[in-house]
Amino acid sequence: MTTTDRQSTGRFRRPRNAAASRTAILTAARACFSGDSYERVGVRDIATCAGVTAALVIRYFGSKERLFAEALRWDLRDLGLAELLAGDLEQLGARLARYVVLEAPPGPFLTIVRVAPNAQAAALVREITEEEFTVPLARRLAGEHAALRASNVTAMLLGLAVRYHVLQDGPASVSEGEAVVALVAPALQCYLTG
Amino acid sequence: MTTTDRQSTGRFRRPRNAAASRTAILTAARACFSGDSYERVGVRDIATCAGVTAALVIRYFGSKERLFAEALRWDLRDLGLAELLAGDLEQLGARLARYVVLEAPPGPFLTIVRVAPNAQAAALVREITEEEFTVPLARRLAGEHAALRASNVTAMLLGLAVRYHVLQDGPASVSEGEAVVALVAPALQCYLTG
Repeated sequence: MTTTDRQSTGRFRRPRNAAASRTAILTAARACFSGDSYERVGVRDIATCAGVTAALVIRYFGSKERLFAEALRWDLRDLGLAELLAGDLEQLGARLARYVVLEAPPGPFLTIVRVAPNAQAAALVREITEEEFTVPLARRLAGEHAALRASNVTAMLLGLAVRYHVLQDGPASVSEGEAVVALVAPALQCYLTG
Repeated sequence: MTTTDRQSTGRFRRPRNAAASRTAILTAARACFSGDSYERVGVRDIATCAGVTAALVIRYFGSKERLFAEALRWDLRDLGLAELLAGDLEQLGARLARYVVLEAPPGPFLTIVRVAPNAQAAALVREITEEEFTVPLARRLAGEHAALRASNVTAMLLGLAVRYHVLQDGPASVSEGEAVVALVAPALQCYLTG
């Protein structure tokens, strides 16, 4: 047990701000999980990066899996997907295309592709992306196969993000980005409003 | 220097079949690069897996980068993309959708997403996927923005493959797969023939 650990568990030196430690751990987890494969990132790495002990990480989050789930959920909420989904359905294809092509940060998408080949982490990604994006999107869609159409939108956005952030093949200029948006938006809109 | 290495370099015991060793190395490389991140796979791992020495791998392929490039090229050629592209353009969206949703093996797609964050390997993937798929596809397209439309098709197929093989979220049954094909085909066809 290290000094830091004793400080956080001992009677006399409770951490002055548990919320701050929790935030530091989650921030570190987001960086670690987007920077290396799920299987290679250890609780110890995240603890080191957050400046706390591994024991504290486990006390706050229970396990690496649960920390991963919270980190990814935070990642996705920070994308502001709820706001994107909330507006006019007729323009949703254009909003989503513009966001993924020109604005979205790489972190969450890197985290997502880096779960392979861990089946448990892949299951968490499925569950969390569904809850945070695919299901709320499906609720907005009328007509047949809403869930399947929403899943295809998710896959299409993932494909663009992989191209841009994994293959590092983003648009070379804003005008090229705008040309991509102009092509992608109607394809997405096909899934949304037929 | 190991016994195997001496056998392959020595005067008296040349490898009886250099082509067989080359194939064994490429087969091992394909398995290794789809099974772990580009950065973690070493020439030594591939050599062990192929039953040869690391020195032999370097003699045949020059470097890990060049071996990766050949392995990925072989991966993509084995997908039979040229045959998919060769047929009727009006049905190409349906053929591509059916292939990726119901038939394609996971290996090449896992290899592709596992290059992150190595910029050099990402550049190789961009170059090779363009040569093997995106450029031949663009040559088949009439109208404006053929290259950009072809790139979007590639991204869309990648997105489906990531969903199926990275997130392990493939169709639960053939009939669900057929429903996905029925939705994806027209969206792809949008990019192909407008």
